[in-house]
Order: sequence, then C-alpha cells, then structure tokens
Amino acid sequence: MPNTTAVIEALEHAVPGRVRTESPDTAEFMLDRSGHRSAGAPLAAVYPERIEEVQAVCRIASEFKIPIVTRGAGTGLAGGAIAGPGEIVLSLMRMNRVLEISEDNRLAVVEPGVFNGALNEQLAEHGLWWAPDPASKDISTVGGNIAMNAGGLLCAKYGVTREAVLALKVVLADGRLIEVGHRTVKGVTGYDLCALIIGSEGTLGIIVEATLKLQPAVTGEIVTIGAYFDRLEDAVRTASEVTRQGLVPAIMELLDRRSLECIDDFTGQSISQGADAYLLIQCDGPAAADTSAAVTSIIDSIGGRAQATTDPDESARLVNIRRNTFPAIEAKGTLLIEDIAVPRDRMSEAYSAIRAIEAKYGLIMPTSCHAGDGNLHPTFVFQGEEVPEVVWQAAGEVFTLALELGGTLSGEHGIGLLKSKWLKDELGQDQFDLQQQIKAVFDPANLLNPGKVFAPAFAPSQN
Amino acid sequence: MPNTTAVIEALEHAVPGRVRTESPDTAEFMLDRSGHRSAGAPLAAVYPERIEEVQAVCRIASEFKIPIVTRGAGTGLAGGAIAGPGEIVLSLMRMNRVLEISEDNRLAVVEPGVFNGALNEQLAEHGLWWAPDPASKDISTVGGNIAMNAGGLLCAKYGVTREAVLALKVVLADGRLIEVGHRTVKGVTGYDLCALIIGSEGTLGIIVEATLKLQPAVTGEIVTIGAYFDRLEDAVRTASEVTRQGLVPAIMELLDRRSLECIDDFTGQSISQGADAYLLIQCDGPAAADTSAAVTSIIDSIGGRAQATTDPDESARLVNIRRNTFPAIEAKGTLLIEDIAVPRDRMSEAYSAIRAIEAKYGLIMPTSCHAGDGNLHPTFVFQGEEVPEVVWQAAGEVFTLALELGGTLSGEHGIGLLKSKWLKDELGQDQFDLQQQIKAVFDPANLLNPGKVFAPAFAPSQN
Repeated sequence: MPNTTAVIEALEHAVPGRVRTESPDTAEFMLDRSGHRSAGAPLAAVYPERIEEVQAVCRIASEFKIPIVTRGAGTGLAGGAIAGPGEIVLSLMRMNRVLEISEDNRLAVVEPGVFNGALNEQLAEHGLWWAPDPASKDISTVGGNIAMNAGGLLCAKYGVTREAVLALKVVLADGRLIEVGHRTVKGVTGYDLCALIIGSEGTLGIIVEATLKLQPAVTGEIVTIGAYFDRLEDAVRTASEVTRQGLVPAIMELLDRRSLECIDDFTGQSISQGADAYLLIQCDGPAAADTSAAVTSIIDSIGGRAQATTDPDESARLVNIRRNTFPAIEAKGTLLIEDIAVPRDRMSEAYSAIRAIEAKYGLIMPTSCHAGDGNLHPTFVFQGEEVPEVVWQAAGEVFTLALELGGTLSGEHGIGLLKSKWLKDELGQDQFDLQQQIKAVFDPANLLNPGKVFAPAFAPSQN
Repeated sequence: MPNTTAVIEALEHAVPGRVRTESPDTAEFMLDRSGHRSAGAPLAAVYPERIEEVQAVCRIASEFKIPIVTRGAGTGLAGGAIAGPGEIVLSLMRMNRVLEISEDNRLAVVEPGVFNGALNEQLAEHGLWWAPDPASKDISTVGGNIAMNAGGLLCAKYGVTREAVLALKVVLADGRLIEVGHRTVKGVTGYDLCALIIGSEGTLGIIVEATLKLQPAVTGEIVTIGAYFDRLEDAVRTASEVTRQGLVPAIMELLDRRSLECIDDFTGQSISQGADAYLLIQCDGPAAADTSAAVTSIIDSIGGRAQATTDPDESARLVNIRRNTFPAIEAKGTLLIEDIAVPRDRMSEAYSAIRAIEAKYGLIMPTSCHAGDGNLHPTFVFQGEEVPEVVWQAAGEVFTLALELGGTLSGEHGIGLLKSKWLKDELGQDQFDLQQQIKAVFDPANLLNPGKVFAPAFAPSQN
C-alpha cells in the first residue's frame, strides 16, 4: 500500500498549484456519461499545463506504483475515463491551446484538451476543417476523440479519427516522451505506433500533443433530406440502395419507431405521424445536387415520404429530429447506450434481432443507426442509477448478435469498463493475448488506466 | 546449424509439390527492384496455395528456427523482400484469388498474391475501385502493397493503403492464425493491430487474406493539365498555392530539369524545350472542371505554360511524360531511388538542398516529386551493380535533410535493408526500442524477415 501522504506531497512539489485532493474536485471523476460509477473518489486530481508536468506526474506515479487515469472532458460512454480510490486523475483540460494552424500543410498542432467544436471554429476562419464529428463534439476534447478513435455521423464519407491524425506526442507511463507518426502526409518508417495509440483508451500512453490532418472546408449548398417510412425494412433497404449505387452522402441516419415515439413524447408533437422509421440524409460538396436527386428517387421508388431542402432553417429542423433522439430517450429514464457495428448488408437482420431481444426481456430499446456505415445504437432505458441485471443480459445478447453478423462490439464508443467482459469473444484468445503483451511493452507496471479494456473480470456498476 | 536436409524433407512432407530448392527457382529471390542483392540463394522457396499451408510452413520454420522471407511480386525498392542463404522464401503468388466483391458493403476479400491492377479490373465491372495506386500497381500484389503501406500518385486526395484496408488474416511466426480489424466501416475493440500490421514489411506476421475498403469508381470527365516552368521554384510555388487554396486534385506531380533532360534523351525529342520543371495535375470527380480552372489560373498567374485537356489521348501524352521518368533515368545507369517526404511547405528548401548535395558529390540526381503530399524521389544514377560509397554518403545527407525539414526517411518505399541504418535517427532511441519490443511480442524467435527494418548494423550491397 503506497504512502498516500508521500504521493500527494511529491505531486504538490513537482507540479505546485496543480493538485486537488478534496471532493468535489476529485469526486466528479467517479463518473463519465456511461452511467457507470467508480467505488469512490480518486486519490488526487492533477491539472498539468505543460508536457513536462505530465512527465513529472508519470515519474511520481511510477515511483509509487499509483495508477493514472487520463481524462479529457469526461463524455465517454464506456466508462473508460472513470477513476476510483487510490488512482491519480490526470485532467488534460488545461492543456487546451491550438499551437499551429498551417494552411500550406493542411494541418494543425494542438494540445489534447481543446474542444473539437472550438478547434473547428478556429479552423473555419482558415477555410479548414478537422473531420471527426462525434455527437459530443462541442463538449468533447480532441485528445479524448483520439484516445477513443471517435466516430460520428460523417464517417462513411470522411473517415474515422484515425484517418485524421498525422502525429502524436505521447508520454509513457515512466515519464519518457515519444513522438510517433509524421508531419508529412505519407510516412512508412517502422511500425505505425501513431495508429496503435489512437483508440488505445489511455492504456498505452498519454497523448500530450496532436498533429491533425485537416481538410478544406466543404463549400457550396447542402441538401438535407428527411424521409418517413411505414416499414423500417424499407428505410434500411433505401440506405442499402444508396450505398450500392455508389452514392456518398455526408450523413445517413436512421431512427426506428421506438426512437420516434420518444421524440414525439419529448416534444409533445406528433412529428412521426405513426411512421415506423425516419431516414435523415445530408449531401454536401460539389455532387450534392446530383446525389440528393438520386437519393430522393430511391426513396420514392421504395415508398418513403421524402422532403428535400436547401433552406438552412428547414434543414436544421430535419436534422434536429435526429439530434433530439438521445435527449428524448433520456427523458424516459437512465440510459445504457450500446454501439454495435455490423456489415452494411446485415442491418436489417440486426434490427429484427434487436426487436426479438427487446421482446424476450420485456425491455424498451430505441435503436438509432449510422446507416451509412452500419453502426447501431441499441439504447437500454431503465429506472434508477444501477444497470439492472436483465439489461446486462440483453446487452450480452446484442453483442453476441453483432459478432454473429460479422460485426463488432463497438463501432465508436470503445471498450472501457462496460464491454471488457466481451472483448475476448471478439478478438479471440490469441489476439487478446497479443494485445495484452503490447500493453505490457508500453506500460510494464500496468499503471495507465488499469482495469479498462482488458479488465480480467467484469466489474458491475456500483453506487 | 539446422539440418538442411531435415528442413526440406519436413517442408516437402507438409506441403508436397510446393517446394523448390534449386536455382534458378531460388536465386531469383536474391533480388528485388532496390538494386540490392543478397549473399546467395535461399535454402528453399515454398509456394503455398492455402492458409493452412502457410501455417504448416511457419510451424516447420519455428521448429527448425529457420528465417522466413515473405514475398509478393518482388517489386520492392528497399530490399525488404530479398532472401539469402539459410532462409525460406514464402512466395504468396499462388494465393491470388478474389474471394468476394460486395457492392452492398463496398468491400472485397482477396488473397494476398492478386495483382493490384488485376483486382481493379475486376472491381471496375462492379463500379468499384481500390484506391492504392503505387507506380508498380500492374506488377505488384495487394499483399505487398499492404505489407509496405504503399503510396502512389493519389494519396493527397485518396489516402494511403492503410486507409483502404478493413481487416486482415495474419499467420504468426509460430503458425497461429489471427484476424485483425473489422468487416465494418467502424470498429474500436482494443488496439488497432490491423494498422500495426500494415506497413510492417513482413516482420510481424504473414498476411494471408485482406478485406479491402473500396470506393465507388470515380465517374465524369477527367481534366489533365501539363505545365512547364522556367524556374523550379515557380512550379513548387504553384503546387503550394493549389494546396493553400483548398483545391484537391487527384494527381499533382513535379519533374525537375534533370528528369526532363533524361526524358528528352530517352525519347530523342525536346519535349521539355529547356524548361526547368514540369507539373502534371489531374482533376477528377464532380469538381474536376472547377478545380482545373482554378489550377490553370494559378499556373498562369505564376508564369507557367499550362495546357489543359479532357481528350484521353492528349491526357495520356501529358501523363506519360511523368510515367516515362524512371525508364528514362534507368537508361542512364543503375538507380538508387530514394523516397523522402517533407512537410509541403518545405519542398522548395528540399529541392535546393538536393541540388547542393548533387554538386558536393558530383552526382546526377533527377528528383521527381508527388507535389500534393511532399514526397520526393531523389534518384541516384551510377554505373555497375554495386552502390558506390559516395552514393551512400550522399543518400545519408538526403535522409538527414529530410529529418531536418521535419520530414521522414521514407514516404512510401519502406525501410527494408536500405534505410535500416538511419531508422533510429528518425524514431529516436525510445521509440526504436518500443518497436523492437513489439516485434518480439509477435515473433519472439525473430524468424520473420530478420535483418530487415531493424538491422542492427548496415549491410552493404553485395554481388
């Protein structure tokens, strides 16, 4: 058992003024947005402002064998950044500067704590754009997006976070600083440790600086299409046909009847008018008009009721039906938002099976979907803070379903604590072992976010 | 010293009819396209046709501690796939089937030995396209492209190979088979071992199947622009301005005076008419007309002499000026084609420094460049088979230059044997150590392509 007083003294000496040890400063880190809660407040929260301070904290943690939980804005949905007793929280929220924006190189260099939305506001002034677009973008950090390899609405057209990062500065558990990746568009020198760190959920190292690959801002008119369908299968078939015809909308989102009912209840209006599904499609760039015309034609031929618009207000109204989904569902109770992805031609089967799981367990599972990439969010609604056992059972069936369909446990939220029980089912024992050995190469004392991703046993939710 | 006879007997027993031990079958593997040559013919060449056969070979190699050099079509430029005495060559050229093409999922599943160009011919019938586009595409394999994370002409717009691979089946050194990545567009379950394997040059595992991320075929008129400049700096400035203005051509290639002179000599024509540089730009997709108009306007304003065309024959003529470059240089002697990448705003400095290195060593170094992404190919021309010491000295200065400019040793050719001496300079000791430890996790007995990438000492070219 390490000497807590000595640890705190060492931290306060190394990074004076940056250390908090009292609740509520520390207790807030027991939670993220997963509904999960740790067993108690962490030992200390440290708010470094420079890379050297992160290194100093790591050296102390290594010396005293204290776990470090790196933390951005805490918007994670998998319990990956919650901290418990005896752990140091390393909050990177004060390392939030934009260090460089280069139009010539189409890149930006940023500290990890900058918000995605705030960065993109700055980039817009330069005609540039960082594409990762998680729903949380206004309240989540670039560092957090990278640590989770965040997805979002735009991935089918614009890729995931991994494709939008050129290089990283990473502090290792023992305090050493490495630079991985390249400032250049291409680079093939040894193994791609930059890609390995992206999505590693704070378990391999601490991302203290990122060089981001930017795109020119998308210009021109945006066409937004909202379409209601009497049968969910028809909405899925429409999405499939859009993909099959080689059309590439920026956004293609699907809401099922359960989601629409929540939205109707939430807004007090009957916007769904009894429809079984809603499909939101947005087309941007130079092909926007042609793509949207082709999409509308597909919707019509399949019997959907499409409305297409280029008017910004009307477009916002159509988009907000999707954006209101989770607030509307949240009004019904506590949520466990799941996140499976399946091959795009298995979406219909996935929805059918989710309906069956819902019925089997007597649950309500509104399920929205990034229909352009087959990423479904079956969402469990329950009362109280603790996830009921029946929900875990149903979630387990959902994960098994995803694997049976050739898909994955998590399209974009990560493993964290919530899915560590199922990770080996997807990876297989051999790959699971390799991943743990890689973890041991980077962090032999297992100090970085221990118990996350590779938790040996499943830790149930605690109050 | 392993019992050679016993090894060959075991191979012939495990994979009957697939083993060759006599020259010239084995001697051809002493070479690739790097100009490098191993000290002698390998022990055996094995031509598996199924995954199980690859596994069987690996188990035998592990048992007898025999190194395995995995080999595609042998078009590598860094000596990464050449084999020497006592090594087994595992040629994957007979595993060349296209197993699946899915329009619904926009993916293909292929064996590693299929040629990139042949695959794309099949995909075109489905309106699909695999984007990686190395110059070697008609004669290089998909597996080789993935093992090297191949680049090409289209990377600034369409990305590198890493972004075009969803999942891999990989046989480990001990014969175990793992599946990494996802069949889905998104997936975040643990570490991205798929990205780690891509570009690992045959040192971590043997890629025996790949699930490729496809794009809809690009349709519509293609505009090709060829422009001559009296000063290379103006051509570089044009390329920079194209990037700065947020224009995204598919191809943007730059040839310097030395390259043009070689082409003139090769063709017997004076196509360059004394120009100092040639810029080839090709614009595709729905913005092709607008982009090419903007590009032409930039060229005019900087004083280049632009010719733009949509005529396929005339377009081919402009493109062939670039395509003829390496054959034209090769007519002058033996080549060592280097491959540095620099941030796009440092291209002009890179060219100036290359001129100075040329003068200092009294060499001829035609240097073409993927100007959309800052990837330069300084090409050393010499007589005879062996790379002269003065060329290695000059190459060393080129690598140092790349690092000084914030760039990298290799944009797309990889490390192989040729650059292993400099790898640590780029990675730094800490990252170099981490990479070697990761190698040891996958291949503890160091049987997969030993001496490549991480060669402890520099092995000079041998005849």
